[in-house]
Amino acid sequence: MEAYLDNSATTRCLDAAVEKMTEALTVNFGNPSSLHMKGVDAEEYLKEARHNIAKSLGVSDKEIYFTSGGSESNNTAIIGTAEVRKRYGNKIITTSVEHASVKNPMRYLTEHGYEVVYLNVDENGIIDLEQLRNEVDENTILVSIMHVNNEIGAIEPIEEVSKIIKEKNPECLFHVDAIQSYGKIKIRPKELGIDFLSVSGHKINGPKGSGFLFVKDGDRLAPRIYGGGQEKGLRSGTENVPAIAGLGVAAKYADEHLEEHREKFYSLKERFINAISGIEDIHINGKTGRDSAPQIISVSVYGVRAEVLLHALEDKGIYVSSGSACSSNHPSQSSTLQSIHVKREALDSTVRFSLGIFNTEEQIDYAAKTLSELVPQLRRFTRK
Amino acid sequence: MEAYLDNSATTRCLDAAVEKMTEALTVNFGNPSSLHMKGVDAEEYLKEARHNIAKSLGVSDKEIYFTSGGSESNNTAIIGTAEVRKRYGNKIITTSVEHASVKNPMRYLTEHGYEVVYLNVDENGIIDLEQLRNEVDENTILVSIMHVNNEIGAIEPIEEVSKIIKEKNPECLFHVDAIQSYGKIKIRPKELGIDFLSVSGHKINGPKGSGFLFVKDGDRLAPRIYGGGQEKGLRSGTENVPAIAGLGVAAKYADEHLEEHREKFYSLKERFINAISGIEDIHINGKTGRDSAPQIISVSVYGVRAEVLLHALEDKGIYVSSGSACSSNHPSQSSTLQSIHVKREALDSTVRFSLGIFNTEEQIDYAAKTLSELVPQLRRFTRK
Repeated sequence: MEAYLDNSATTRCLDAAVEKMTEALTVNFGNPSSLHMKGVDAEEYLKEARHNIAKSLGVSDKEIYFTSGGSESNNTAIIGTAEVRKRYGNKIITTSVEHASVKNPMRYLTEHGYEVVYLNVDENGIIDLEQLRNEVDENTILVSIMHVNNEIGAIEPIEEVSKIIKEKNPECLFHVDAIQSYGKIKIRPKELGIDFLSVSGHKINGPKGSGFLFVKDGDRLAPRIYGGGQEKGLRSGTENVPAIAGLGVAAKYADEHLEEHREKFYSLKERFINAISGIEDIHINGKTGRDSAPQIISVSVYGVRAEVLLHALEDKGIYVSSGSACSSNHPSQSSTLQSIHVKREALDSTVRFSLGIFNTEEQIDYAAKTLSELVPQLRRFTRK
Repeated sequence: MEAYLDNSATTRCLDAAVEKMTEALTVNFGNPSSLHMKGVDAEEYLKEARHNIAKSLGVSDKEIYFTSGGSESNNTAIIGTAEVRKRYGNKIITTSVEHASVKNPMRYLTEHGYEVVYLNVDENGIIDLEQLRNEVDENTILVSIMHVNNEIGAIEPIEEVSKIIKEKNPECLFHVDAIQSYGKIKIRPKELGIDFLSVSGHKINGPKGSGFLFVKDGDRLAPRIYGGGQEKGLRSGTENVPAIAGLGVAAKYADEHLEEHREKFYSLKERFINAISGIEDIHINGKTGRDSAPQIISVSVYGVRAEVLLHALEDKGIYVSSGSACSSNHPSQSSTLQSIHVKREALDSTVRFSLGIFNTEEQIDYAAKTLSELVPQLRRFTRK
């Protein structure tokens, strides 16, 4: 049996998305900037995708900007805000558990004279709202906080964050990295007071190389890529019509099946956690119930190195992640796990199981059973 | 009959590329950063594409960096060099006929304290080498010059440019926008002394959203997108495996058929120019022989607005461009045409025919015949 349980790293693309992409690659292959019919036909894909995505968030079509993916969306929102608003202040607030595509733009800004404050999190990975309240000041131009943590599935209190920001400094903008939450948790940026929201296509069964940034109407950003003025000047370069078309299909599908998928994931998550609860000396990181992300389960297996466990599982057809897997090939120790005070000996012994729409109960049972069998064997091996 | 003659705006994707993309979207859909087999399988696509591309240029695999397309490649080379080398100087030299994805990064740099010099071109769009020689100085950190002009098909004297740079300031880096030349003209960056070379996938029958930047081993660039450290830190974000796989197929195909396609294009170009030579009051811009790009024909049709002509041709199934078509929907007057001193009344009366590998002699004859018939009709209409 095979069980792909690395869906937070990437997902299989939907067949319906691939079909639409193929059409855009070979039949309606025009450049949306072309004035003739081939261009107009290509532009239809953009319009349709933009509309479906806007609908899924309850925002207007014109507030959706296509990018090459989640990393570009995060970079554009963060560096783009900093460049445009530097005369209003130089302070930016984020958390200690962000993805590298937020963390590293922050480092870049630190090198360029901005002050970046990293909020602490508790043992469940939830940010300290009091610290946020103390930090937001007149000089703060941006708060950037992820919605769902990619490593342990913590759900951050976005709504409370937004209230605190508006209370302390109504001019301060709010960016949310929703790459792990979009399609799993219903998001209403307008009601939540969000200015910028980043989403990636390949985490929701859309194609790699696709993503979007919601930009609240009226907010301005400096582009990362200058050129022909596509996406109203925010993102130049010929639009990636096939990928955007695929993203549109995936977003619509994710939105229409959101409740169904969420229930499925919570049920599989509970089933898996119950099934592995008998394994000695393991710890499930973060919250595990309905106050955690439905699709992510982080397990520390004391006495077994994550990489060894990962390859042992792989031998049995089970694919998981060690630490955060959408980072580079040679990940350093996870700052998220350090931030939630995972015991030192568990830092290198933590694997992530992440669920996707194609997973079945049989796969979950198989993965749990295999894990239960492997762990004692690997420990014997390690301790020899 | 249908004749798509807007191949410099974008091309139909090769079926073989689409097939490989579909495989990467649905079968080997892993994240190359994942440590398990699914990640390794995905990485194979990157390795293969990188190798085929490197081979086509005679460079090493490690000198090829994947991007989301030509615009990103140009932005990365230009702004990336400026950021890294600002302590060595603040002068950059480019031309007055560059694509918007070079021109607008230059504007951005001008706003950030850099001095940008724009070389003049002659009536054929060829840059002034003497001006270049006068301008390259100790303070010059980058020269960025396109290989083939996208509007009129001028081929710039890259080799001479390189010699002048090395003579005047060996520390100055050299970027070439090869988006319209790669696959049509054999390029050897090492022999030509090129540091950075930008290429786009969708101009060579690969997918949109794909491209690469050749970076000479040892040269450093600041990234435009920070994050997980993919592409050796130069371009973060999960690699767009399907698009890169498709790009690899297209690059290999373009390289293996380069001479054949070049001969075909030159022959079609000559055939077209001969066939339309009888039309009164038209002018073909730039050179037209083997010292011009094989695939581009720029025609000024006096007394007929380009947009009117474009739509009249479209009605007959012939798709062309007015001005440069890979720019935004509402192009302003072409600075390339202004630079080559196209008569004022012709600026709005110029269309571009650009050839692709699927074009046939029949299509060319049909397009020429249709143009010959339409022009007098449209002039009658306009002059009424």
